[in-house]
Formats: sequence, C-alpha cells, structure tokens
Amino acid sequence: MECWVDGQPADALSLKDRGLAYGDGLFETIAVHSGKPVLLDRHVERLLNGCQRLAINLDHATMVAELSAYAQGLHDGVLKLIVTRGDGQRGYAPAPTAQARRILQGNPVAAYPAANAQLGVRLFPCATRLSRQPLLAGLKHLNRLEQVLARAEWQDAEHAEGLMLDMAGRVIEGVFSNVFLIRDGVLITPDLKRCGVAGVMRAELLFQAESSGIPTQITDIPLEQLQWADEVFVCNSVYGIWPVRAYAALSWPVGPLTRKLQITARALLDA
Amino acid sequence: MECWVDGQPADALSLKDRGLAYGDGLFETIAVHSGKPVLLDRHVERLLNGCQRLAINLDHATMVAELSAYAQGLHDGVLKLIVTRGDGQRGYAPAPTAQARRILQGNPVAAYPAANAQLGVRLFPCATRLSRQPLLAGLKHLNRLEQVLARAEWQDAEHAEGLMLDMAGRVIEGVFSNVFLIRDGVLITPDLKRCGVAGVMRAELLFQAESSGIPTQITDIPLEQLQWADEVFVCNSVYGIWPVRAYAALSWPVGPLTRKLQITARALLDA
Repeated sequence: MECWVDGQPADALSLKDRGLAYGDGLFETIAVHSGKPVLLDRHVERLLNGCQRLAINLDHATMVAELSAYAQGLHDGVLKLIVTRGDGQRGYAPAPTAQARRILQGNPVAAYPAANAQLGVRLFPCATRLSRQPLLAGLKHLNRLEQVLARAEWQDAEHAEGLMLDMAGRVIEGVFSNVFLIRDGVLITPDLKRCGVAGVMRAELLFQAESSGIPTQITDIPLEQLQWADEVFVCNSVYGIWPVRAYAALSWPVGPLTRKLQITARALLDA
Repeated sequence: MECWVDGQPADALSLKDRGLAYGDGLFETIAVHSGKPVLLDRHVERLLNGCQRLAINLDHATMVAELSAYAQGLHDGVLKLIVTRGDGQRGYAPAPTAQARRILQGNPVAAYPAANAQLGVRLFPCATRLSRQPLLAGLKHLNRLEQVLARAEWQDAEHAEGLMLDMAGRVIEGVFSNVFLIRDGVLITPDLKRCGVAGVMRAELLFQAESSGIPTQITDIPLEQLQWADEVFVCNSVYGIWPVRAYAALSWPVGPLTRKLQITARALLDA
C-alpha cells in the first residue's frame, strides 16, 4: 500500500528531516485486522508519552484520524507509523515550534512460521548489549543501532529471535520482542527503567494477567536466573506470543500459563 | 546548494531508507574552503572505519569523487555527508548485499560569534549523560538523541556549547565538539572507548601536538579534575578551537597553549 506523509500519499521524505539526521523521532508498528488498528489505545499512549519525553509537538487528533483512515485502506496487515520532529536546520537544537511529521507505511500480514507459536522458538544469545540511558528507556525511538547490530549476529533460521542483555548482564528483551518468565505461577518481566522498549503487548499482557488473578512482577532479572524459570516466552503486538523452548544450553517445555496467555494474545490480535 | 543523493541532484529520500527507520548510518560534517574539503583524509578515514564496524558496504572511490565534486560546487561552506545502509525491508536484519546510500548537503559558512574564538566560551552543564556503548563509541553515527536532548537543555546565547559527562561522571565531550584540558604543559583529552564521537579536529590536534613536542594524554577525566586544569578548550572541524573560560563555578584564563593550537587549527581550516 502507498505511504502517507502528513496525511498525503508520498513516496519520499525531505532530506532535512531530523528523523534521518539524528534518529530524532519515534515509531509504532501496529497490527491491522479487518481495517482496525489492534491495541490502538496502547500504541497511542506510548507514542504520546514518547513525544512528551522528547518534547516533540505532535497533533494528536490528526495522527489518530490518519491512523484509522490508513488502517481502513490496509484492511489486514501491519502498519508502521513514524513520527519525527520534522525538518531541521543545521545543528542539534530543536526549534521549539517545529511540528512533528507523520509517516505511515503499510505491509502485508507478517509471515512467520506457524511453528514459532506452536512449538516455540530458540533465542540467539546476542553479544550486543543494551546501553543504560534512563532518558530514553521504554521509548520506541528511532535510535536503533543496537538492535541492528544484534540482529546481524545471526543469519540461520534456527533462531527466530535473539535475547539482549544490558551491560550488567541483566535480561532485558528480544531484538523485536519483550520477554517474560514464569516461575511458581508468577509472571515476571524485566524492569525497563534503564533500557529496552516497553512493548504494547507486554503492557496488555501484564494488565490481562492482573485482571485474571495471575500474580505479576516487574523486576531486574540477572541472566543466571533464567535457569530457574518454569516457562519463558517472548511477545510483541504483531505476532502475539512465541513460547521459548531454548536459549544456549537452557531449555523449557511450552507450559500451561504460556498457552493460556497465548490464547489471550491471539484473541486480542483477531478481535 | 542543491542536495545530491547517490551523485544525483535530489530533494527527497526514499521512505524505506534505514537511516530514517533506525538511524542506521553515519555522517560527516566537513568544512569546505576554496572548493576543497578540509581534513578530507581524516574524515574519510573515520567514515570508512565506521562503515567497517557497522558492516555498511560503501563504495569508497565513488564517495570520495562525489565529495570532491560537491565541494568544488560549494566553494566555501560546510558540507554534510550522510551515509545510510540504503533501503530496508521490514525488520532490523540488514541485507548483507545492500549498498550504502550517499547523501550530500551544502550549507553556507557557519556564522558563530567572533567572540567565541577570541574571548572564549562558557559551557552549559548538561544533565543529559552519555550512555556506555563500546560498539558505537567513537563513531559519528546517526543515533544522536542524546545530543538532541542535551542541546535542548539551554536556549540562552550565553552558553555557546554544553559539556556532556558519561553515566559515571567522567568528562567526555561537548554536544558538537571535543574537549581538551591542559595541565602542566600536557594536552589531555578524554578516552572515547565507552562513548563519544572521536572528532577529526581532535585527532589532528593530537597529531600536531605530538609532532611539535607537546606531550599528550588520552585518559579518563572525572569531572572533579576539571578544577585542576590550567586551560580548557573545545574544538571541531568546522570552527576550529574555542577557548573555554567558564563551566558552572569554574573559570579559566585563555592560556598560551590554547592560543598556539588555535593558530594551528585556523591554518588547517584556511589552507
């Protein structure tokens, strides 16, 4: 499907855009089902939080209206919204009055092997570590060289995702997913106050678990603690949940709580 | 002056460019004097080192030829070269065969107040810290949100630059400059193995100092050590050297070694 820039069909971007110059912007990757953006409120919430933290002036109402209209045209697929600080002049200083630029791109439904969700995946142990930057932690911003380097570490099809640690050796996230452990019936996911992207599916699963009486915990998870997990899974807002069956020498069965949450995630994506 | 993309006049960029999507690329800001790019060899060396470390396939000879031709047309000013990994498909995985895209932009000579070089500048104490990422340290890559946040911390004209520390409180660099101290006749600059941009003027000044018998040291500089400096200056390959006369409650005279190196830098820029 054609791209839109600020609501108009376009196939090119101004060379002065600060998204290109500095990665000065944010993005959202949103599943679209039957013409509707899935988990729209959570995507919008994260994006607006990012705009606030980066002091990017985004026209909220126009952005939501464009998202909805674009999703209708796409009908089924994956929509990517990039928001940049707009054009810049020379130098890092942002113009306080600059208005954000909105870029919409559509792609077909993601074609992942069905086995990923059914049988689970193996995670590649990425050597690329995530740096600590509380000012950017949690945001889905456009500075993603760490993910590019991590994803370039493996080419085989055996590993569907990679696991990334921070500089202190804590488990943080997948390259394009969040990660959860289950131990003694508690749903545990890494604290993302230092680094990592606070995923929309992560937030929704935490909410759904709490609503249905499953205890949850957001905490630091040193790599050594992975071996004590009863179940492990990764998630994002496009594919839902993939059970993790192996990481390096560790392996896990696909457990009952993972299957239960997988059904929840699937229902959200197919709603 | 008009922009070039891959050697052709252009005013827009593909929306699939990975520079926009992920900040997946590098840049150089090069002074142009009488049609010649200043310190060209050092800029090219840093860029190629960056391409190697990020595994970006850049056509070296074509890039240098374009730089030279563009500089001739610009005659006097500042040239910005952005190199991205080119167009991407969905996802972080880089196509190993992708060819880098070259973007050239020209600007007039930078108009900084003459007092910056003559009387020295005051540095703003940036609260934004630089995160530790050895895989990217030294490179002039397109992930520059930390600089954007730091530069947004002050709007007054009293501060010509800001000083950035790393998470451990070490002095690293200015927002768009490198920093040097002089103590007991030794020229000292921060080690950039954890973070920071290894500037072209920084490299050239270290080389020139060593060549003329001035002892140099590249080392960690905790913020507390600033008070023991006899002279402080910042530098980059566009403005040369600005003496630093103040940072927070600290102040320094414009010292003799700073003046000597300033003449060296000026001669390089006017060559």
